[in-house]
Amino acid sequence: MMTTRMIHHRLPLLAGGTLLGALLLGAAATTRADEGMWLYNAPPRKLLKERHQFEPTAAWLEHVQKSSVRFNSGGSGSFVSEDGLLISNHHVGSDDLQKLSDEQHDYVRNGFHARTRAEEKRCLDLELNVLQNIEDVTARVNAAVKPGLSADEAFAARRAVMAEIEKESLDQTGLRSDVVTLYQGGAYHLYRFKRYTDVRLVFAPEQQIAFYGGDPDNFEYPRFDLDICLFRAYENGQPAKLRHHLRFSTNGVSENELVFVSGHPGNTSRQLTLAELEYLRDQRFPYILARLHRLEVMLTAWSGRSDENARRAKDLSFGVQNSRKAREGFLAGLLDPQVMSQKKQAEQRFRAALAAKPEWKDTLSAWDRIAAAQQIVAGQALPHTLLEGGHGFDSTLFGIARTLLRAADEKPKPSGERLREFRDSNRESLELGLFSEEPIYDDLETLRLANSLGWLTEKLGSGHALVQQILAGKSPRARAAALVSGTRVKDVALRKKLYAGSAAEVAAAKDPMIELARLVDAEARRLRKINETQDEVKRQAYGQIAAARFALSGTDTFPDATFTLRLAYGVARGYQGDGRKIPFQTIFAGLYERAAEHKNKPPFDLPPRWVERKGRLDLSTPFNFVSTADIIGGNSGSPVVNRAGKFVGIIFDGNIQSLVLDFIYTEEQARAVSVNSQAIMESLRKVYDAHELADELATGRAK
Amino acid sequence: MMTTRMIHHRLPLLAGGTLLGALLLGAAATTRADEGMWLYNAPPRKLLKERHQFEPTAAWLEHVQKSSVRFNSGGSGSFVSEDGLLISNHHVGSDDLQKLSDEQHDYVRNGFHARTRAEEKRCLDLELNVLQNIEDVTARVNAAVKPGLSADEAFAARRAVMAEIEKESLDQTGLRSDVVTLYQGGAYHLYRFKRYTDVRLVFAPEQQIAFYGGDPDNFEYPRFDLDICLFRAYENGQPAKLRHHLRFSTNGVSENELVFVSGHPGNTSRQLTLAELEYLRDQRFPYILARLHRLEVMLTAWSGRSDENARRAKDLSFGVQNSRKAREGFLAGLLDPQVMSQKKQAEQRFRAALAAKPEWKDTLSAWDRIAAAQQIVAGQALPHTLLEGGHGFDSTLFGIARTLLRAADEKPKPSGERLREFRDSNRESLELGLFSEEPIYDDLETLRLANSLGWLTEKLGSGHALVQQILAGKSPRARAAALVSGTRVKDVALRKKLYAGSAAEVAAAKDPMIELARLVDAEARRLRKINETQDEVKRQAYGQIAAARFALSGTDTFPDATFTLRLAYGVARGYQGDGRKIPFQTIFAGLYERAAEHKNKPPFDLPPRWVERKGRLDLSTPFNFVSTADIIGGNSGSPVVNRAGKFVGIIFDGNIQSLVLDFIYTEEQARAVSVNSQAIMESLRKVYDAHELADELATGRAK
Repeated sequence: MMTTRMIHHRLPLLAGGTLLGALLLGAAATTRADEGMWLYNAPPRKLLKERHQFEPTAAWLEHVQKSSVRFNSGGSGSFVSEDGLLISNHHVGSDDLQKLSDEQHDYVRNGFHARTRAEEKRCLDLELNVLQNIEDVTARVNAAVKPGLSADEAFAARRAVMAEIEKESLDQTGLRSDVVTLYQGGAYHLYRFKRYTDVRLVFAPEQQIAFYGGDPDNFEYPRFDLDICLFRAYENGQPAKLRHHLRFSTNGVSENELVFVSGHPGNTSRQLTLAELEYLRDQRFPYILARLHRLEVMLTAWSGRSDENARRAKDLSFGVQNSRKAREGFLAGLLDPQVMSQKKQAEQRFRAALAAKPEWKDTLSAWDRIAAAQQIVAGQALPHTLLEGGHGFDSTLFGIARTLLRAADEKPKPSGERLREFRDSNRESLELGLFSEEPIYDDLETLRLANSLGWLTEKLGSGHALVQQILAGKSPRARAAALVSGTRVKDVALRKKLYAGSAAEVAAAKDPMIELARLVDAEARRLRKINETQDEVKRQAYGQIAAARFALSGTDTFPDATFTLRLAYGVARGYQGDGRKIPFQTIFAGLYERAAEHKNKPPFDLPPRWVERKGRLDLSTPFNFVSTADIIGGNSGSPVVNRAGKFVGIIFDGNIQSLVLDFIYTEEQARAVSVNSQAIMESLRKVYDAHELADELATGRAK
Repeated sequence: MMTTRMIHHRLPLLAGGTLLGALLLGAAATTRADEGMWLYNAPPRKLLKERHQFEPTAAWLEHVQKSSVRFNSGGSGSFVSEDGLLISNHHVGSDDLQKLSDEQHDYVRNGFHARTRAEEKRCLDLELNVLQNIEDVTARVNAAVKPGLSADEAFAARRAVMAEIEKESLDQTGLRSDVVTLYQGGAYHLYRFKRYTDVRLVFAPEQQIAFYGGDPDNFEYPRFDLDICLFRAYENGQPAKLRHHLRFSTNGVSENELVFVSGHPGNTSRQLTLAELEYLRDQRFPYILARLHRLEVMLTAWSGRSDENARRAKDLSFGVQNSRKAREGFLAGLLDPQVMSQKKQAEQRFRAALAAKPEWKDTLSAWDRIAAAQQIVAGQALPHTLLEGGHGFDSTLFGIARTLLRAADEKPKPSGERLREFRDSNRESLELGLFSEEPIYDDLETLRLANSLGWLTEKLGSGHALVQQILAGKSPRARAAALVSGTRVKDVALRKKLYAGSAAEVAAAKDPMIELARLVDAEARRLRKINETQDEVKRQAYGQIAAARFALSGTDTFPDATFTLRLAYGVARGYQGDGRKIPFQTIFAGLYERAAEHKNKPPFDLPPRWVERKGRLDLSTPFNFVSTADIIGGNSGSPVVNRAGKFVGIIFDGNIQSLVLDFIYTEEQARAVSVNSQAIMESLRKVYDAHELADELATGRAK
C-alpha cells in the first residue's frame, strides 16, 4: 500500500524524517510520456493537449483542486458530497481506526458503519487540509537571504522570512499557510489550506477486504481490494457545507480512457544529483531497511503472542511492512545498473550543456557544493537519525516528552527563530497532535523503546558516553520499562499544564521521560543545526541548477514531490508482465476465484459477510484497475477523475514495477492501482446495506 | 527450539560458521551449582557425590555414552531399542523430513509413520556419530608445534599433525576420528565415532504438535510440545543390532529428581576473554541478527505467497526464526550490565591471582595476544564472513560449486596441507553431503542468492571491485536468476564426474556457479588464512591461560562446548517467574486449555487428530518438564536419563532465561525443557495408534 507514513506517524512531534525529507526534495528535468506530478499553478496544458487532446479550464482545475483533501497523518482523499462526506483509503484511515479502537472494539479489523449521523465517531487527532490557493513567494524568500551571508546566517534568514510570510498569511486569511520549497530550492510557493479538525468516521470495511491478499499481494497486480474509508468533515458541530465536491460516477473507467489523479505524493528523488542517489543506495536505504526488518520481526513476534497484542500493534505493523516492501523496491531500482546508468547519462548531458554556455558554466560548481554538503550530512547521519530523528527513542511517550521540553524552550523566542515545527503558524496543528487522547499501551511502548534503545546502543556503541548516560547502568529492556512506568506524560491534562508552563515548571516536574529528552537535547540540536546549515547550502546550489534548467529546457515541468497537492494524468491500461498480458481491470468474480485458489486461507480469506452475500453481487462488476498516472507514497486515497471531473476511482497502491518511480518514470510496466467507483457502489449496497451512503454518493448530498 | 543449526545446514560444504565457531571455543573456569557440560573422560564425580550422593560407575558411563547419538546435521539423540531405533526431536529431524518431502508429501507439516519396516524411508544425507572412545593427544599435537615457529608455520604444523593423527586412527580402527580442540587450545582429544549413514525415518508427529505454540512459545515455559522424531539405524541393509541402548522409563520424572543429559552442546562462550565477549556484543551478534532479521522477513513474505512456497522454505524458515530468538537472548544477556560486570570481575580476580604468582605472571600477556589477534580477526570479519563464510552466496548450489572447485585444488595435496574439511579422514562425510539427492528449488535458490548478493553489495559497497565482478553488470536479482538457471551442478551425476576429475576438467565445465566460486576463491582463501593464523595465536595463548587455570583451580572442570558428547546433570525443578511459581511439569490437560484460551488459532491450534482423540487420553499424563541441567543449542534431542540410566525424557528447548547460559551459568531461573517419556508413550498409543513403536520402546526390542 502506498502512503508517506513512516514509522513515526507524528512527525510534528518528533521531527522524525526531516533528514530524508530534506534529501528527497527535487529539481526539474525533462518530462517524458505521461510523467508528472504537476503543480496546480502550472498544469501540463501543453502535454495534455498534445497527447490527449484535453484542455482543462480554470473552473475544472479549481473544482478538482478544492475537492481534494490532504490527510495530515499521511495520505490523500476527496470530498464526495456537499454535506462534508469524504473518501480515502482504509489504510489511510487506519491511523484513526486504530486510535478509536479498544479491547472491545477493533475497528481496523472489523470495520465500522455509522448508520446515523449520531453514530459517526469523532477522530482523535485528524487534521485535513484543503488547498485554497498558491502564491509564488520565491523573490521575497530569496531577497531575505542577502549575498555574503554564511550558510548558517542564510539558513536563519530564510527560516525567519518563511515564518514571517506564513504568520502574515495566517493572520490575514485565517488559513493554514505553509511556504513550500520546490525544485529543492529553485522556487518557494506559499500554500494556503482550509483546515478541518472535527472529522468523523462514517464507514470502513473489514481490513481483510480492504487489504485483501495482505503483504504477499501488497504492491502487486491483479488485485481485489476494497481499500476505502469514509469520513465526514464538520464545522461548528454540523456537517461542513461544501461548494466543491466530486460527483461520483457510476460508470467507472474504460480501457485507454484518460484519467487524472489529484493527490499528495510525499517524496520523490528524480532530480537528486547522482552523488545523492548513491548515498541513498549505499547508506541510507540499507540503514532504513535494516531497521524496518528488525521492527517487523519484533512486532510480528509480539503480535503472535495474543490477539490483543496483534490489535494494539496492527496499524504500526502494517506501516512497517508496507514501508519495508516499498523501500525494497526503491533499493532494487537503485541497485539496477541500467537505472543508475540512465541517471548518470542524464546528469552528464545536462552538465555538458551547461559547460558549453559561458553564462551557465559557473553553475557546474553547484554539484560539488551539493556533494560536499552531502558528505557532511552523511558523516553524521547515524547519530542525527538516532538522537534527533528519534530512531533511538521509538516511543510515542518520548515524542510527547520531547515536544513538552522543547516547547518550553522555544515559545519565548520570536517565531522565526524557533525550531520550525514550533512556528506560530503551525501552533494549532502541533497542539492537535500533542493533546491527542490516542490510547498509549505501556507494553507496546516498552517493547518499542527497549528495541530502539538496543538499536541506539548497537549503532553508537555501548562505550559511547551519551549512550551510557541514556541507559543509566541498565540494560535497554530494564531502562525502557523504568521510563515507561515512571513517566506521567500519558496524562493529557498534565501535558496541557506543562505545555502552558515555563521551562522551570517543566523541569520541576522531574518526569523521567522529559529528563531523558533533556539529556540528549543539546547533542540532538547540535546535529540538527549542522544538517539545517547543509540543507541551506544545498538549497542554494539546487536553486542555481534549477534556474539553469529552466533557462535551458523551459519551465513546462514539475518539481519533485513534497506532500503538496499535485495533478497527475494517464490512461487506464494493462501491461505485459511475466510474459503475459495483464488486463487493466479485475472484476468481483476474480476475488472469489483467488480465495478459492488459496482455500480461503489467510491472507486470502474472505470476510464472512463477503462469503454470505456472494449471491447478491453482480460478479462482473469491475473491482480494481491500473493506469499509467505518475504516483508515489502519499497518493494513497487520491481520487481518480475523468475528463468530466467525475470520481471514477480511488488510488490505493502501485504495482511492484512502479516503485522505481521514486527515481525515474517509466510507463512500460509501472502502474497506479485504484478501486473502481462501481466496486464501491456495489459493495456499499449489497455487502454492507449502506444504502444511505450509496445514495449520498450517487446524489452528492445527504438525505 | 535449541539447535546448533545455523542458516547453512551444510557446514562441510560452505565452511560457514567457522569464524564464530573459532571464536566460541572455550577454556575452564570455576564451576558453580549444577553447572557443567562435562567430558565423558572427566566426569564430575566429586560434585555428583557431594551434591547428589551419586557415584556413576564406569559401566553406567559407558552405557549412556554409547547410547548417545550425534546428528551431524546439528543435534542429538539416543538409541532406544536394540534394533537400531533412535529418538531425537522433530526439529532436529526436520532437515530430513524436509528433504524427503515433495509437492505431494509434506512430512514436516503432516508428520510420518512407517507402519512396517518396508515403509521406513532412507534419509538422503544424514550421518549419525556414536562416540566409542576418547584419547588425550595434547602432548603429540603440541610437540609438533616446535618452539620458535611463526604463527603461520605453527598453524600448518598443527593442522598437519591433527590430520595425521586422524588418518592413522581411521586406518587402524575404521572409526571416524576427529581431533577436538578443548579449552580453546588447552587440550586436544581424539574422538572416535562409529558412523551410521543408512538411517531411516520411522515416525514424526505433525509439526503443529511438535512445535506447539510456534515462535511465540519458542524458548518459553510452560510448554506442551511433542517434539520427537524416530529413526532407525541400519547396517548392511538390516536394522543395526546394538549392544547399548537406553531403556525407556514409563515412570517419567519426579519433582527434585536428579537427572542427566547426554548430548552435544554446540558452542558456549563462558571462558572467552572480556575483550572477545565485547566483540560479540558490539559487532558480531548485531551483524548476525541484522542478517537473520532480513532473512526472516524475506522468507516469511515469500512463504506467504503460496502453500508450496511455505513448504519449500519451512525448515529454513524455522532455522532462521529459531536462531533469531536465540541470538536475541544471547545479546540481551551481553547487554545486561550485571552479566558483564560479573564476567569482568571474574577475569580481574583471575589475573590478580596470576600476577601474585611469579611462575604464572608471564601468562598475563596471553590476554594481550588474544586481544591483538581478535583485533585482526574483527578487522576482516565482514569480508571473511561474506566471501569465505558464504553469507554473500546463500545458496545450496553455490556451496556445491565451491566444494567441487576446491576439491579439485585440494585433493592433489597431502592430507595435512589441505583445507581442513578436505582431509582424508573427513572424506566420507564430505561426499555424503556433496552427493545428496536433496531437492533444490530454483525459485528458493534464486530468492536466497539474490538476497545475499544484495547483502554482499550493501556490506562491501557497490563500488567494491570484487563486488562489481561478482555482479557482472547486473542487479543482484538478475545475476542470481542467471546463475541459478545457468548452473548444472543440480545434477548429482555431474557432481560425481567433476569431483572425480582434475582442476582442468572442472574448469572445462565452464559452469557459471563454479566460475563464481573461482572468482572469489583467491580472496576468500586469503581471508581464511589470516583467520586461521590468528586462531593459532589464540590457541597458544588460551593454552597458556588454561594451564595456569588448571594449576591454580585444579582440573575438576570442563571446557566450553564443542559439539562433542558431554554429560550434564541437574534436578527437575520449577522456578519463580514473573512473580509466580512455575511448576516443574505440565500435563496434557494444559495443552487443551491453552488451545481453548487462544480459540484454537495458529500457532495455538491443535492438529485434527489431537482434537478427535482427546477423549481417549489420560489428561493427567505429564507432558513437558524443566530441569536445572546445563544445556545449549546442539543439545536438542538429548536423552534425559535417571540414576538408573533409563530414558525419562528428551531435551527440546531451554527457557528464555537459559539463553544467557551461552556466557554464564545460573540455576535461579534458567531451565532446560524436555518432553516426558510418559507423554511419548501416551501419544504414540492413543493419538497415533503406533502400538508397535510403543511396544518396541517398552521392551527395548522390535517384534
